[in-house]
Amino acid sequence: MLYIDGLECSLYDREVFQELRTGQLACVTPTLAFWENATETMDEIGRWRDLERENADLIRIARTADDIEQAHRDGRTAILLGTQNSSPIEDRIRFLELFHDMGLRVMQLTYNNQNAIGGSCYEPEDSGLSRFGREVVQEMNRLGMVVDLSHVGERTGLDAVRVSGRPVAVTHANPRSLYDHPRNKGDELLKALAAGGGMLGLATYRNISGPWANSREEWCDMVRRTVDLIGIDHVGIGTDLSRKSGEPELQWMRKGRWTRTEQRGAALSGTPGKAPAITWMESTADFPALAQCLSEHAGFDKNEVAKIMGGNWLRFYRQVLKPA
Amino acid sequence: MLYIDGLECSLYDREVFQELRTGQLACVTPTLAFWENATETMDEIGRWRDLERENADLIRIARTADDIEQAHRDGRTAILLGTQNSSPIEDRIRFLELFHDMGLRVMQLTYNNQNAIGGSCYEPEDSGLSRFGREVVQEMNRLGMVVDLSHVGERTGLDAVRVSGRPVAVTHANPRSLYDHPRNKGDELLKALAAGGGMLGLATYRNISGPWANSREEWCDMVRRTVDLIGIDHVGIGTDLSRKSGEPELQWMRKGRWTRTEQRGAALSGTPGKAPAITWMESTADFPALAQCLSEHAGFDKNEVAKIMGGNWLRFYRQVLKPA
Repeated sequence: MLYIDGLECSLYDREVFQELRTGQLACVTPTLAFWENATETMDEIGRWRDLERENADLIRIARTADDIEQAHRDGRTAILLGTQNSSPIEDRIRFLELFHDMGLRVMQLTYNNQNAIGGSCYEPEDSGLSRFGREVVQEMNRLGMVVDLSHVGERTGLDAVRVSGRPVAVTHANPRSLYDHPRNKGDELLKALAAGGGMLGLATYRNISGPWANSREEWCDMVRRTVDLIGIDHVGIGTDLSRKSGEPELQWMRKGRWTRTEQRGAALSGTPGKAPAITWMESTADFPALAQCLSEHAGFDKNEVAKIMGGNWLRFYRQVLKPA
Repeated sequence: MLYIDGLECSLYDREVFQELRTGQLACVTPTLAFWENATETMDEIGRWRDLERENADLIRIARTADDIEQAHRDGRTAILLGTQNSSPIEDRIRFLELFHDMGLRVMQLTYNNQNAIGGSCYEPEDSGLSRFGREVVQEMNRLGMVVDLSHVGERTGLDAVRVSGRPVAVTHANPRSLYDHPRNKGDELLKALAAGGGMLGLATYRNISGPWANSREEWCDMVRRTVDLIGIDHVGIGTDLSRKSGEPELQWMRKGRWTRTEQRGAALSGTPGKAPAITWMESTADFPALAQCLSEHAGFDKNEVAKIMGGNWLRFYRQVLKPA
């Protein structure tokens, strides 16, 4: 069995890499940019190259699905580089190819705000995918990059599913029909995503899981309900874990450089600060226990657990990461 | 026989690419940056990717010496991407690896001004290679990039030859002992360069060739004198041609964003405007005639002509472009 976490916001250091190995993760996608521009994102990619050299016994940056399987065989965790915004390309179609050259493999079309590509889940009005947005999705198809719709607005997301010639992903969100939150996704989008061969990474992030996060068992119940909704082949995990990430990082995610006013992000009610990590998924070291719970509590058979824990992500990456 | 031009400043379009084919060029290095920063240089690399797609019958971007030979066999001209300044890396050691990923293979350490790496040929005082400069040369060695010293100050150039673990190049300059100009290189540097297996690309640029540019025959006499100085294996051609480049480009090269005052660049005396192209080397279409003149006028044998016209550059690229 091979475990994959489709999206994290953690601040990685050797200790967090060791947690990845404790959890037997074959692959994880970290977040290299929320609002960062091209140069700043290159700083992050460069930093990851150094992290890779300094922790070569634990991790390896992956560019292909084969790299992920090879890392798994070698007892390393593959790092699939991703961003949660298209800010790195600075509205240039040509930069997608260049960031692909540098190893970027996952890009969310919008973060929390509207941009040149489309609308976000928090905007009062979602324009749908713009003319530039269509070009971006098609160019990502050509290059072999994961089109991530997690924070994207519903209408823009549906447009992207239709425009994309290849399967797309919601790397970290939950079904809105199971927990009503703007960050979560409606059934229409999720079913269209699945029909196109796409993937939904279910998040353990407290703010968008609601009561399902109360216990590992309840979260596995949500997995069961999601599988009933879109099928066993389209559900994976995208924890949205933010290990070692603190208040400055939270404020950067929420406010970037676009506002001076308080922003609550996904914390729509209650305390606006960082949501405490859920006790049963404090780090990726808890992945094996999750696999066990999917089997023992939620009643998935071995094959189904393997798909949810990473097999589906690997199949998706194999389809999507090859250049067209 | 295989022809290579080690450096040009031309503005390329389909017509200039056709001149490369008329001249039977196997490889040319264009200039993607004089003062441009990381993002601006990425714009240029992206533009070259489009030029490559639009002119696939004429050119091909090369990443290795094998790519150059393959392009030659296919009747295409290989484009070896280069910059005449280190401005693209914005003083970040990590960016060298990323620009290498994007296909950059030649980088001049300084253009006309001192920078964080070292001194330029036009500075009143040359610091020599800085601490950062040493790191840059060693990182370029590791990655397999051509360290270009053409506009670099003499002391910084000598330091670079000594620090470099691999052969380095002066892609476009002439021996100062044959024509006294600050852009040209002293015998000590040229001999150290050759002793390390490096390359000098002789320039047909009027401002730094002086009377040697008066005729093809006289320029070939300069080649003969240079071969006598540093040996047949270390001399090639780096025309410094600037086809279709005009006054705005000239002002950008000379003034960048660093000054409001008039700058004359290499035009130390006489008219400060763009030097007219020499009549016998108006474009690379004149390369075959140059080969003929090296043989018939300067008396080089076939093997020697082949080395000067491109064989030496290819051997050098084969040594230098492989990652360490």
